[in-house]
Amino acid sequence: MTAQHRAYLDHASTTALRPEALQAYVAETARGAGNPSSLHSAGRRARVAVEESREALADLLGARPGEVVWTSGGTESDNLALTGLYRARRDADPRRRRIVLAATEHHAVLDCVEWLQAREDAVVSWVGVDATGRVDPAELAAVLADGTDVALVSLMWANNEVGTVQPVAAAAERAHAVGVPLHTDAVQAVGHLPVDFTASGADLLSLSAHKFGGPVGTGALLVRRGTTLVPLQQGGGQELGVRSGTLDAPGVRATAAALRAAVAALPGEAPRLAALRDRLLAGVSQVPGAVVRGAEPGPGRLPGNAHVTVEGCEGDSLTYLLDAAGVECSTGSACQAGVPQPSHVLLAMGLTPVQAAGALRFSLGWTSTEADVDAAVAALAPAVERARRASGSRAGRAHRRRPVLAGGS
Amino acid sequence: MTAQHRAYLDHASTTALRPEALQAYVAETARGAGNPSSLHSAGRRARVAVEESREALADLLGARPGEVVWTSGGTESDNLALTGLYRARRDADPRRRRIVLAATEHHAVLDCVEWLQAREDAVVSWVGVDATGRVDPAELAAVLADGTDVALVSLMWANNEVGTVQPVAAAAERAHAVGVPLHTDAVQAVGHLPVDFTASGADLLSLSAHKFGGPVGTGALLVRRGTTLVPLQQGGGQELGVRSGTLDAPGVRATAAALRAAVAALPGEAPRLAALRDRLLAGVSQVPGAVVRGAEPGPGRLPGNAHVTVEGCEGDSLTYLLDAAGVECSTGSACQAGVPQPSHVLLAMGLTPVQAAGALRFSLGWTSTEADVDAAVAALAPAVERARRASGSRAGRAHRRRPVLAGGS
Repeated sequence: MTAQHRAYLDHASTTALRPEALQAYVAETARGAGNPSSLHSAGRRARVAVEESREALADLLGARPGEVVWTSGGTESDNLALTGLYRARRDADPRRRRIVLAATEHHAVLDCVEWLQAREDAVVSWVGVDATGRVDPAELAAVLADGTDVALVSLMWANNEVGTVQPVAAAAERAHAVGVPLHTDAVQAVGHLPVDFTASGADLLSLSAHKFGGPVGTGALLVRRGTTLVPLQQGGGQELGVRSGTLDAPGVRATAAALRAAVAALPGEAPRLAALRDRLLAGVSQVPGAVVRGAEPGPGRLPGNAHVTVEGCEGDSLTYLLDAAGVECSTGSACQAGVPQPSHVLLAMGLTPVQAAGALRFSLGWTSTEADVDAAVAALAPAVERARRASGSRAGRAHRRRPVLAGGS
Repeated sequence: MTAQHRAYLDHASTTALRPEALQAYVAETARGAGNPSSLHSAGRRARVAVEESREALADLLGARPGEVVWTSGGTESDNLALTGLYRARRDADPRRRRIVLAATEHHAVLDCVEWLQAREDAVVSWVGVDATGRVDPAELAAVLADGTDVALVSLMWANNEVGTVQPVAAAAERAHAVGVPLHTDAVQAVGHLPVDFTASGADLLSLSAHKFGGPVGTGALLVRRGTTLVPLQQGGGQELGVRSGTLDAPGVRATAAALRAAVAALPGEAPRLAALRDRLLAGVSQVPGAVVRGAEPGPGRLPGNAHVTVEGCEGDSLTYLLDAAGVECSTGSACQAGVPQPSHVLLAMGLTPVQAAGALRFSLGWTSTEADVDAAVAALAPAVERARRASGSRAGRAHRRRPVLAGGS
């Protein structure tokens, strides 16, 4: 009996640690103990690791080293950005309570803003998206006609479910015209698309290392010079007081190594993944009832993202059946895995809850191969057939609940 | 020319990653990608890593697995504990604005409480300490005579500068008698002293992996069943919604492995370190003007902590000279390294600012040897002599400032 081919097609949720990153991690730990805040030789050596990694990250992302704030990952970066900027902007002018938000933001942004609404008087101006998931520039302009009462705009660089790339630079320009700063959640973009922080005009940019082959538990917030943030956690005053907590020399070394590898590979990797993605979409769109969602392949879509909805199926059942057939994908965000609710992204794109229920996200990454894609294409039709039979035989049953212990995009 | 012996005596700041931890980390990353929140096989495998590590950590600390909340480290744990409990207690009863706090808490606690004072109407009742750094039980009883307006008590398990162990169980009993929960920052205790969460009576306990040979960037907050916390960061709803953010399977595997090794070694390691520490104190106390600070060696003091103040010297100059002689130690908290202020811990113990200025902390750990101790003893007298000469020749000069880019304990 041969081992089943496992096709991991959930790289948007997390991707494997790159060998360059593991090597950098191990090499840094081999240098022995050293707290980057300590003044002795061991501390200074660890500080060098942190600062060299900061310079590398900045260089790879078109930022200045002083604009990099190390965090524990995308969720913390988003929370620090939203909460920190909201508080700082309100402190400076109490009228600034409005947060302008695309309807398709990640839950780390949405839930943070919901919290600010519930506890700190924030008010949300939603910006709708078109059928591909792209924000409507006219709507954005309308909600930013007057910036007096606006604390900030948050617009993700690329969507985690459908891969749609947002016009961040145009939005930043629009926001700046009325004196409003912009945050972009670039967790899905960094390492997968060319990202130039300075050129983007964004004032804050969130990233997470494990999305590009770095370690889980490391990330950064890029903070444009002159942007004031109220810190989220207090303590030792690291990162110029913006983010207290012992700096993780091995983790940031690994993060820099992973991003260096990802960015170096990008010119070849982006078309390779786009070709694989197109092959996948060509295959799965043959399945009756399958509809490709999101933007046209091209610069408006993440090269590794494929998204379909399958009529008459539940995504949860499909992912279960596909997994049994050796194909690992998701219904959307891993954070929301097991949550029996239609995706807010698909609803914002105009899908009905019934259409949205059949969502399947395949996301490709640096380890993806043609064999993975072909396995997914081969597995989908029988899975759909089986899911439809099951769905028919269980019509009207209550939605099966799985425990909600979710997490991660 | 032979290489200089480097004596790393700053384990309280951070200690080297244990080989068991590195091995666990590497082994987990070798299993490939998998987000513990994903429902497919790769996700479930990563979830097993997280849950097995949770069970191990709980088992080693006398807690239930459901009481472990993974975080990014001690600073986040302290902030989540203090802020989360303060908000939850105030939400339930708006009169509860008072936070009872020992004067010698870590900056992650102090600065968080200061923030709550400045922004969320918290009021602090300070509890003083005796000359050894131990809280005064009568003073604690007095500030807890009436618990009606108290949000919480925070009392560290063991002090990061002078190693004094606090009567956490007695304080928890006292707090509970008036209906008040207690948080303990056990960052310096876990892996270094026997810690039984259930027996301690504490409602919340903070720990940080890199203090016991686990990776930087991983930690936990133990949360007694039935304790409500308002989360600090919002998002995917991981950790039952208490702490959103992708779970770090390699990091928690490494954390559990490190703690397992530390706890297994403890029966032999605690007396070994205590003996080394006593040898160190016996040696350094021969230096004229050196005064040992903190509690008597014994159960009231961390086995690896040695603390002296040296009359007529500045700790900063001494650590610089000792480092040049191959001995790495600190003036106190690494977080505060370079901050030209006398330690709040020493001031609370009744030292004058001038006495406190000559503080030196030597902290021993799992890699410490007799050679390290002997190197420190040999290096101290000449360093003190040189520092005194320099100090005399520069009398009256302004305090030299180093950049404040601090962090860590």
